Amino acid sequence: MSKCDYPLARVYGLLESGPVVLLATARKGRANVMTLSWLTMMEFEPPLVGCVVGGDSASFEALKVTKACTLNIPTRELAKQVVGVGNCSGRSVDKFARFGLTAVPATEVEAPLIGECYASLECRVADTRMVNRYSFFVLEVLRAWVDTAVKNPQTLHHRGNGVFFAPGETFKLRSAMK
Amino acid sequence: MSKCDYPLARVYGLLESGPVVLLATARKGRANVMTLSWLTMMEFEPPLVGCVVGGDSASFEALKVTKACTLNIPTRELAKQVVGVGNCSGRSVDKFARFGLTAVPATEVEAPLIGECYASLECRVADTRMVNRYSFFVLEVLRAWVDTAVKNPQTLHHRGNGVFFAPGETFKLRSAMK
Repeated sequence: MSKCDYPLARVYGLLESGPVVLLATARKGRANVMTLSWLTMMEFEPPLVGCVVGGDSASFEALKVTKACTLNIPTRELAKQVVGVGNCSGRSVDKFARFGLTAVPATEVEAPLIGECYASLECRVADTRMVNRYSFFVLEVLRAWVDTAVKNPQTLHHRGNGVFFAPGETFKLRSAMK
Repeated sequence: MSKCDYPLARVYGLLESGPVVLLATARKGRANVMTLSWLTMMEFEPPLVGCVVGGDSASFEALKVTKACTLNIPTRELAKQVVGVGNCSGRSVDKFARFGLTAVPATEVEAPLIGECYASLECRVADTRMVNRYSFFVLEVLRAWVDTAVKNPQTLHHRGNGVFFAPGETFKLRSAMK
């Protein structure tokens, strides 16, 4: 994995454009992964990320119990795996094996990083007050890994119903926005 | 405005890809607008949207008091206005006038729709329990308006620091994902 340690203050730039992510957990030594696109940045530093994790999923249970996960950002080459991961349950399938994903040890959490993704964030659950009502977890990013050789990463963005787009042209506007 | 009434069950597809939005409010008859990219879907139907609205902004105050707003999705032609709106405060500027935005009356809320945006959502605040800690509002979408003639809308996606991209190629993958 050619990812480098990445400044936490810049993590928001990885997520606020709305990429589909793979959320990985580990429970009793068993890794699992799910596809997720309902997430938002909530704070710059330390970076907080809010995400909705379906309440009937194995990942929901693992996240609730272990209070840790990784968020991994795939690019277009992984599109079929991303959809495949979203279409089956970790209760009956070893998704890492089925989809040929590489579980790379993280440093701060037991949940693995996904080697094939261009960026990976190690997270712990920081707030569970919205879990019962909305299945909404607030995560704190403890450490970030990014393959900084990837320019204009071809992240996946879901429009619903299996329709995705990848980024087109990038442009810069003079902005005081962080 | 050539927007049509749009099914609430399909609203998630407008937002989950991570577009920058314009949040409009009205307080004491005065409209205001801000730029926002920290938001996520939280429920399909009725559609719930969670968003972080900076606690020192005029929009934050208006949203807290009036408990209503609209979310408007701009496309690339509006990029300069979107950045401009994000770089000044409604406390000192009439942003609709300065940026040439058209306030169109909504049906369910006092806050206006923005005529130039290809989609507009009328929202009321549904939950404020995360406002004090995270400036995070849960909104319920009451009504949606979309210009359905716009195919592959060139929404704006912020990578941070004034760097944006618009969607490139769209593709469909066989998915059980909603």
